[in-house]
Amino acid sequence: MFRVIEEHEQGRLGALDLGHGQVKTPVYMPVATRGAIRVAPLEQVNQIGFNLILNNTYHLVLRPGLDVLEQLGGTHRFMAWNHNVLTDSGGFQIFSLKKSRKIRHDGIEFKSPIDGSTYFFTPEFVAHAQNVIGSDIAMQLDICLGYPASTEEAKKAMDITLRWGERFLKADRIEGQKRFGIVQGGFNTQLRKESARLTAMQPFDGFAIGGLSVGEPEEMMFDLTAEVLSNLPKGAPKYMMGVGDPFQIVVLSSMGIDMFDCVQPTRHARHGWVYSWDDGPQIIVRGKHKFDHRPLQYQPQYTYSYLHHLFKAGEPMGMLIATVENLSYMADLVGKLRNAIASDTVDSLKEEIRLQWRKRIISE
Amino acid sequence: MFRVIEEHEQGRLGALDLGHGQVKTPVYMPVATRGAIRVAPLEQVNQIGFNLILNNTYHLVLRPGLDVLEQLGGTHRFMAWNHNVLTDSGGFQIFSLKKSRKIRHDGIEFKSPIDGSTYFFTPEFVAHAQNVIGSDIAMQLDICLGYPASTEEAKKAMDITLRWGERFLKADRIEGQKRFGIVQGGFNTQLRKESARLTAMQPFDGFAIGGLSVGEPEEMMFDLTAEVLSNLPKGAPKYMMGVGDPFQIVVLSSMGIDMFDCVQPTRHARHGWVYSWDDGPQIIVRGKHKFDHRPLQYQPQYTYSYLHHLFKAGEPMGMLIATVENLSYMADLVGKLRNAIASDTVDSLKEEIRLQWRKRIISE
Repeated sequence: MFRVIEEHEQGRLGALDLGHGQVKTPVYMPVATRGAIRVAPLEQVNQIGFNLILNNTYHLVLRPGLDVLEQLGGTHRFMAWNHNVLTDSGGFQIFSLKKSRKIRHDGIEFKSPIDGSTYFFTPEFVAHAQNVIGSDIAMQLDICLGYPASTEEAKKAMDITLRWGERFLKADRIEGQKRFGIVQGGFNTQLRKESARLTAMQPFDGFAIGGLSVGEPEEMMFDLTAEVLSNLPKGAPKYMMGVGDPFQIVVLSSMGIDMFDCVQPTRHARHGWVYSWDDGPQIIVRGKHKFDHRPLQYQPQYTYSYLHHLFKAGEPMGMLIATVENLSYMADLVGKLRNAIASDTVDSLKEEIRLQWRKRIISE
Repeated sequence: MFRVIEEHEQGRLGALDLGHGQVKTPVYMPVATRGAIRVAPLEQVNQIGFNLILNNTYHLVLRPGLDVLEQLGGTHRFMAWNHNVLTDSGGFQIFSLKKSRKIRHDGIEFKSPIDGSTYFFTPEFVAHAQNVIGSDIAMQLDICLGYPASTEEAKKAMDITLRWGERFLKADRIEGQKRFGIVQGGFNTQLRKESARLTAMQPFDGFAIGGLSVGEPEEMMFDLTAEVLSNLPKGAPKYMMGVGDPFQIVVLSSMGIDMFDCVQPTRHARHGWVYSWDDGPQIIVRGKHKFDHRPLQYQPQYTYSYLHHLFKAGEPMGMLIATVENLSYMADLVGKLRNAIASDTVDSLKEEIRLQWRKRIISE
């Protein structure tokens, strides 16, 4: 299902064969949480170069509900997306419902923020839900802590996640579906190593690193990732959950991560941060873009001036254009990254991206 | 510039030759007030079948400003729209700034709602602004009253509008631009006739009817339109401002109106009203669409169920899909209307549309 095609000093090139076509790695996966990208038509997202996107199990179970997805033929038909879908289980989202969820040894009980009704997510239910959704890659149910977290908390979350992983793998799956385990362990090196080692003993098709990029220092994230990776099987695909920062993608891929997802590029777009290869992220509402006649990099029919105007005027087309621009940048980024890996020039790409992105503080 | 191609008992087919291509009439013009359709990419709007859209002079002068449009090469380049643009002068918008505008004999003074700065719109300024914008069809500055309006008010607004029309025609224009006069006269038959007769004496390229469809009874609108039309030159194009209701479009076109514009189809879309030829307008958030597996009429890759979900979940892609659907319906409507005129079957189209639209009250 996953093949490492070329192994280089600073990363590797691979191919994931999934139910809806082959995906080249390293890959960035756009996030269509509730069955749509905010804001870009999926057809256009595919034209940009993506054939693997995310849905979120938790969100889809709450709305439209599994009954709708079952009757409508699963998420691919529902969204009109004939390419691959990875579904996160929703552990992250449920855990953040601090007040209205209860973690039990066999699952998580929580109240829907939409209508207050009670749900009970077990490893088996999450497997079932992802079967109904029709996920090409299904993620196990996990417990994802924030930063900081005590060793005790982290140990407990890790143990439960491991147990849930075993149960998840025993549940029925639809044909062709791949299942990924999730390494947890908080911010403790020993726990992270142990979690990786024990997760690796289960017959998962791939391994994700969860619970990082949640507020900890970047160096800590890189260090923990290195420890985890050295305890996971080399040949398996590795997925770093929730990372979409271009610089971090380049660094982590050179350490051996194959897959990335994050809402950041599309969220930035909605807030008027426009990515560009020349200047890095541009804050489009700034006055300097008022007369900026330069064409957008990926949609040269439009100028920065026009996009500036749309954002200043509150025209929703601005968000659409910016989203397409940022996703095009991300597709371009992983393309350049794959070329850099193949030609052993990751260092210079890393430096280029660092200069683009670190010259100013990116925040929302 | 305008040719009546076929004259039938229940309407006429025409062709407007404009600076950016020929437009078949009767035509509905989507409204891109501030240089963008809410919410659809202009490229897609053209693919749907539109080659003439509206911009609003008042809005574009306020933002981005004529200095930007001048430097960026006019609205066609700015919006990346290589087809025709009609610009309303903005009289309607300025008049509705009740508290912060002052009508003088030579123009309207008002304060920008954006930054409070003072503007003075004269017939000459509005002509100049539309030259900078690069309008293929420019509208005169007018005074547009609401309903009801006293005869005295209506007479005064009409007289000023007539004078401003004369001055507008004397101002320089860019090559190829067509200029339309606007008939006013409130809700008084005699004033409407007089306004039409006097406006018709000016060498306008076309004639618009303003100040109707502002809250008066539908029958009154139809009756006043008939009176106006009988006092305008037969061979000239007639534009009914602000009408986008499908039934009214069919009725008014059979009376001799060639052009229509209205934000209604796109505004309805943003509020989840989805037009369809089978069932008329559908309120997509209604529970009955939750499991509705029928495909959308013009985007059959999507189901009503999916669109229902997007609106319930607050996903902005819902607005985009609904907008494309409603604009497709409008393009289809005028296509069917032209066929019905050619085959003298307008009555049956009118009845079909009436049944679609009048079985429920359309309101926002």
